[in-house]
Amino acid sequence: MRKPIKVEEAIQSVMKWPLTGEKEFVSIENSYNRVLAEDLLATTDVPWFKRSPYDGYAIVAASTQQANSEYPIFLEVLGTIGAGFTWDAELQPHQAVKIMTGAAIPEGATAVIMVELTKEVIKDGKTYVQIKRKVKDGENIVEIGEDMQKDEVLVKKGTSINPGVMATLATFGYKTVAVMKKPTVAIIATGSELLEVDDPLEKGKIRNSNAYMLKAQILRAGGEPIYYRLVKDDFEETFLAVKQAIEQADIVITTGGVSVGDFDYIPKVYEKLGATLLFNKIAMRPGSVTSGALLNEKVIFGLSGNPSACYVGFELFVRPYLKAMLGQENIYLKKAQAILEKDFLKANPFTRFVRAKTTFDGNELHVEPVGKDKSNIVSSLIDANCFIVLPGGSRGFEKGLKVDILLIEDEGAPIWDEHITDSRLPR
Amino acid sequence: MRKPIKVEEAIQSVMKWPLTGEKEFVSIENSYNRVLAEDLLATTDVPWFKRSPYDGYAIVAASTQQANSEYPIFLEVLGTIGAGFTWDAELQPHQAVKIMTGAAIPEGATAVIMVELTKEVIKDGKTYVQIKRKVKDGENIVEIGEDMQKDEVLVKKGTSINPGVMATLATFGYKTVAVMKKPTVAIIATGSELLEVDDPLEKGKIRNSNAYMLKAQILRAGGEPIYYRLVKDDFEETFLAVKQAIEQADIVITTGGVSVGDFDYIPKVYEKLGATLLFNKIAMRPGSVTSGALLNEKVIFGLSGNPSACYVGFELFVRPYLKAMLGQENIYLKKAQAILEKDFLKANPFTRFVRAKTTFDGNELHVEPVGKDKSNIVSSLIDANCFIVLPGGSRGFEKGLKVDILLIEDEGAPIWDEHITDSRLPR
Repeated sequence: MRKPIKVEEAIQSVMKWPLTGEKEFVSIENSYNRVLAEDLLATTDVPWFKRSPYDGYAIVAASTQQANSEYPIFLEVLGTIGAGFTWDAELQPHQAVKIMTGAAIPEGATAVIMVELTKEVIKDGKTYVQIKRKVKDGENIVEIGEDMQKDEVLVKKGTSINPGVMATLATFGYKTVAVMKKPTVAIIATGSELLEVDDPLEKGKIRNSNAYMLKAQILRAGGEPIYYRLVKDDFEETFLAVKQAIEQADIVITTGGVSVGDFDYIPKVYEKLGATLLFNKIAMRPGSVTSGALLNEKVIFGLSGNPSACYVGFELFVRPYLKAMLGQENIYLKKAQAILEKDFLKANPFTRFVRAKTTFDGNELHVEPVGKDKSNIVSSLIDANCFIVLPGGSRGFEKGLKVDILLIEDEGAPIWDEHITDSRLPR
Repeated sequence: MRKPIKVEEAIQSVMKWPLTGEKEFVSIENSYNRVLAEDLLATTDVPWFKRSPYDGYAIVAASTQQANSEYPIFLEVLGTIGAGFTWDAELQPHQAVKIMTGAAIPEGATAVIMVELTKEVIKDGKTYVQIKRKVKDGENIVEIGEDMQKDEVLVKKGTSINPGVMATLATFGYKTVAVMKKPTVAIIATGSELLEVDDPLEKGKIRNSNAYMLKAQILRAGGEPIYYRLVKDDFEETFLAVKQAIEQADIVITTGGVSVGDFDYIPKVYEKLGATLLFNKIAMRPGSVTSGALLNEKVIFGLSGNPSACYVGFELFVRPYLKAMLGQENIYLKKAQAILEKDFLKANPFTRFVRAKTTFDGNELHVEPVGKDKSNIVSSLIDANCFIVLPGGSRGFEKGLKVDILLIEDEGAPIWDEHITDSRLPR
């Protein structure tokens, strides 16, 4: 008899053995969605020269001391600075230079007045800007370092490179980026019933869907899947595959062979390898026979051969371990709460992870189980975007209850909600 | 003077011109996160043979007619069927075959009794299974097609290939998969102030961060970015770049040059190209000068050169257009509601999209603006995982209000919430 442990204990026992990931360098071009291996520092102040936030006129603020709407002042416009250009002379009182958004403030200028507040007039072949109010020193000047300061840590290592981080890398000239190597994850699918995806069907056999599912889960979590092979329900074959995989990969996943059936060799494989068993029974459904073992400081995850149990086992145990190796912070599935839309009355002493779909009605999240909730049913994984978590020891859960959910898929919305930007247009 | 239109009108005007995406074939190995170009059909029933859902004994149910706990019956066990194997003889009444989970039910058997409910006994060198209750016909037999029926549409085209879809593809032997070609998106960054990422800094100039940000946004949305080049604020150069891009790419994005400054050539480029202007002012901040134009039935998106405005413009307008081309359903950003954690008192006639971070306290979503909310500030894009949408025409929004948010980044949770699976372990 195996003794079940709690889900959180199983997670903890795996997370005690964090592998430290390695670093590699990639071009910024190939860095999207990779994980920063070093803090991203500002290599300069931003802006690193004083710049104008608007189209306007760079002026010496003191020249506008007397200006008001009745007695506007006129400053001579010496020229225009486009973005990317500089003005070589020092600006003197009573002079102005037209300046475009983003352009460098000329020497001597102490403020910018927005173009909308001015008027250009031409007199005796010279151009003047008319100003009707007093401008303060420093007005509309973006100071050096106002956005970011040199050597400031902008993004912590372990952050995955999203569009904002990409923009920051480009701003600071990171042509190559130090990122975490993707942890390699070996997949060994065990079971004499398994066929490869391009094998013709034979009676009693099914195609190996778990390995492909796991590949996608590994990619989604940021790892590098290595599909080892199918192994028959044969002790020696399974033993050799796991032994080889643990030498080559950072993480090893087996599917199947973990139960107490006559051909479930994984427990014996752990034994012969000299691996330390971390757990072999978890108080959860599906996947109660999920096991974990430790060998050479690497974790072997023995997932169930049932697709849903395999899926859940990966998301609960392998995902955080893999993401921790990447140095990430948000390694667990995100929790939310949703209103249960259907009675779920099966009693169970174990915590249930029910594949489900959550939808937002504009106000609250709702959730409904998908497919036929049997652990051997692949189809229920297609539409699931969350798990409903139903703690064990209850008689079931009724429609209308608020339940915890764990989010597994990010999705958009099918229509643009036009009320969201319901502004009255200015005339 | 340009006339601003509402955000939803701008979206509609772009979505009136949907390009039809093309199809290509990829290996299942490379299909993760691609979009199905055809409905995914079940090529067989699943299961396509009757199978056992548990470890147990295949029997003829009628043989157990008289069994009860006082008078158990004994059936002779002829052998064992492992998963992947078949039993050649037809099972007769009063016979049993031990059967493993997933194995094919032998001919003649009409039920399976779970191993936990039985006991094996050996008598005169023969093995018998003891059964203490009546078993019903069909009990514990997974019928042909119980999970999925042949020719059933399992996944609709336009669905992106997640781990569940991947498992389904493998189950049905799809070694190659028809997916949508990634729409090509040309990026032309305009501005004489722009340097390439590996250029040394020069006074008045900044590195081109928008193009890299857009690359990441395009990848995230499922497109194929083509970085054209930087163009100076020069009419002819800009014109030629856009002309060439529209011939080669499905979608063209320009950044910068859309305002009314002296060097904003995009409006004139549209004119010379003979493009139809869809809009050149939107009642939103940032990004009010975002423009759209139509040429040869392709849309040109004229995004602002300010990083935040550029970012928002992509997510609101380009993303749904690109995803519609992929045939996807959920093309818009997902909406949620969250409690505003800080006063936001700037009045504005236009709808504001405020870069913000939302967090879930286990009960409700909360949201807070990030960074310094200026449109030229890259750093505020790093931490943002949503936009707060604040409809225009209001005096501002107070802390504690429920506001709409649009989700832009999917994230996990930093800790495993141990209360979520708070089950009492069975003893």
